[in-house]
Amino acid sequence: MATAWSRRYAQRTNAVRSSAIRELLKLTQRPEVISFAGGLPAPELFPIERFDEACHTVLKQNGRVALQYGPTEGYVPLRELIVANMRRYGIVADLANVLITCGSQQALDLIGKLLIDGGDRVLVESPTYLGALQAFNVYGAQYVAVALDQDGIRTDRLPQALESSPKFMYILPNFHNPAGVTLCEERREELILIADSYGIPIVEDDPYGQLRYDGDHRSALVVLDRIHRRSDEQFLSGNVIYLSTFSKLLAPGLRLGWVVAPQEVIARLVQLKQGADLHTSTFTQMVAYEVARDGFLDEHVKRLRSAYRERRDTMLAALQELFPPEAAWTRPEGGLFLWVTLPSGMNCEELLKAALRQNVAFVPGGSFYSGAPDGCHMRLNFSHSPPDLIWEGIRRLGAAVKEQLKGLAAITV
Amino acid sequence: MATAWSRRYAQRTNAVRSSAIRELLKLTQRPEVISFAGGLPAPELFPIERFDEACHTVLKQNGRVALQYGPTEGYVPLRELIVANMRRYGIVADLANVLITCGSQQALDLIGKLLIDGGDRVLVESPTYLGALQAFNVYGAQYVAVALDQDGIRTDRLPQALESSPKFMYILPNFHNPAGVTLCEERREELILIADSYGIPIVEDDPYGQLRYDGDHRSALVVLDRIHRRSDEQFLSGNVIYLSTFSKLLAPGLRLGWVVAPQEVIARLVQLKQGADLHTSTFTQMVAYEVARDGFLDEHVKRLRSAYRERRDTMLAALQELFPPEAAWTRPEGGLFLWVTLPSGMNCEELLKAALRQNVAFVPGGSFYSGAPDGCHMRLNFSHSPPDLIWEGIRRLGAAVKEQLKGLAAITV
Repeated sequence: MATAWSRRYAQRTNAVRSSAIRELLKLTQRPEVISFAGGLPAPELFPIERFDEACHTVLKQNGRVALQYGPTEGYVPLRELIVANMRRYGIVADLANVLITCGSQQALDLIGKLLIDGGDRVLVESPTYLGALQAFNVYGAQYVAVALDQDGIRTDRLPQALESSPKFMYILPNFHNPAGVTLCEERREELILIADSYGIPIVEDDPYGQLRYDGDHRSALVVLDRIHRRSDEQFLSGNVIYLSTFSKLLAPGLRLGWVVAPQEVIARLVQLKQGADLHTSTFTQMVAYEVARDGFLDEHVKRLRSAYRERRDTMLAALQELFPPEAAWTRPEGGLFLWVTLPSGMNCEELLKAALRQNVAFVPGGSFYSGAPDGCHMRLNFSHSPPDLIWEGIRRLGAAVKEQLKGLAAITV
Repeated sequence: MATAWSRRYAQRTNAVRSSAIRELLKLTQRPEVISFAGGLPAPELFPIERFDEACHTVLKQNGRVALQYGPTEGYVPLRELIVANMRRYGIVADLANVLITCGSQQALDLIGKLLIDGGDRVLVESPTYLGALQAFNVYGAQYVAVALDQDGIRTDRLPQALESSPKFMYILPNFHNPAGVTLCEERREELILIADSYGIPIVEDDPYGQLRYDGDHRSALVVLDRIHRRSDEQFLSGNVIYLSTFSKLLAPGLRLGWVVAPQEVIARLVQLKQGADLHTSTFTQMVAYEVARDGFLDEHVKRLRSAYRERRDTMLAALQELFPPEAAWTRPEGGLFLWVTLPSGMNCEELLKAALRQNVAFVPGGSFYSGAPDGCHMRLNFSHSPPDLIWEGIRRLGAAVKEQLKGLAAITV
């Protein structure tokens, strides 16, 4: 029924489909499934005791504030903590440059709302984060896609792509979701120069930047932009909006992310957030601050790095041993994901069905393209499952891949 | 600076201005101000001990779930609790009819996103809730405004207003924000019949329905719609989307509201919420459930009713004693607000400045109109301040009103 409603839906919602990842998360919640599908942190590493103490402290010392309405910009001590945390990575922001959001996903939605008129183009990497496509689609975005390789976005292809005058570029420089690759230093410099000369701003999405397991930290685009402009005094007056989140550093169940941007952009985003949800939960912000303070966040991130490094290494070793030689995969220096490329002709949707029959799950690569996918890919998450389950899951997945390959060879012969 | 950004803002953001209420909340946060401005619950009534216990229980028993990603629809036990709670008021919903949102404000945003294309009309009451205008403006809504009187929206004016074919009607039937009036039973029936015969759906916003201090409960529009359709079996297949929230019943700092709608509408809203913020905080949902369960919510709401009734009565008595006879005001049967009408010629913005000099605050009525305001009004909140401060604040405000009236009389003479 509900026809009174269905003929009233806005045109924009025609572009909206349910997220394959979210729907899969439902399917894979059965306890017997080894899931490499979601981007879930390891739940056994959540600092639950520390959260319990933090809740008690916040409610005892400041309960009347924690449970009341709060400012749209966010809880000041948490924003100050973010400013201090980012400064160590060279990101020089003032309090007025930081807005707390309900996860990075809300930042993407607010940015879409602020910048995208129906039919506007957005330059994205190919593949790119599915949730960003979801957030931008609803505002009627069209896409210009630029391929990635092992060193990140192909900057040599940017000048041609920018001729279509996209409204902005959406870039995941570190431990790319889904591709697992990291933008090399040289291309970062190029990207900043090209963005500036074409006058096209950048939205830099960096949810995993602090989760690096090998190699050296790479400068954030927002930092290189500042250096390029020599604008140490005018903090963040530049060409880049920077996004990050507590979802992977502390806990996604809090729904706490942040935007760093020029003050004028933040003022606009604050207005849009007022209309969207008034503000992010005062309570979760105060609890996150209480958990993170006094150096705890840094210690905790070190523990995460160590655990996730082991899981990544386990998955890489298992792939090497248990996947057929026709498959290739990225070797991420950090983050949560790696990206498997399978021989052309393979069917990833069928592979997922076969995998689910063996109680193992992944996300087929097709979901991560704004246009047509370039071949058959799997996104594999290595943060959620402990090493023994990673090995077992890759064993089952490898068997499913070999099985389909065999069928393919039979047809070819 | 930031010119690279400012010339890229979407056209829709031209309609966006900062919320007067939110900006005022900032001004009035000085501790010496007696604020009748915000819609804030009484912080000394927050059940802080119960929250502390609930946090401990949730983290101890279920910490790995509470801190992890969760389903977009919301935490099932909380949705079940909502279903049971609403059923007592005759609202017959299934789990699949309920979506948890980040406060009612997010429900308004998602509804705007789902239903409003640029230039679409929305029928609103005059005055109406400022936050709804904010949420709908960004999607390019135009408005058809229908006047209120002591019995709620003037249903006799609806047929003419509906000739402009609005996409939906946005109605606050109980203890209206800002006007404090309640839609009478007869007009509720009329509204449902008219909505059905014109085929125009209703968004029923009911944040305060359970906070009634006098008189009998009035049937929700969603209930009357069901009775009108005789559709007891097809739960909520009808013409009404119903919104409510825990903000006034438990604590606004949680940011927890809910939408009740036909399943097909919920499915669409879920897709939009995925793109907007993935889901509402798992942790706050589980804590709210743990606080509310086992009948605690009902007991707590009884305490709120008793305290807020006293505050409303204090404000009414103070207005009677301390305001000039030229002023009139509504006598709300529940909710958080009353609405003062001042003689024409008075200037509410000037009055606010004078009031702030005396450390007392209110919201000028002009903010609550989709078009031009009809005269000079003040919205006064009576839930936030204890009775002695209400009396003192009304004394100061009355003096400011009398002062301006005197000046007005002098000019007239």
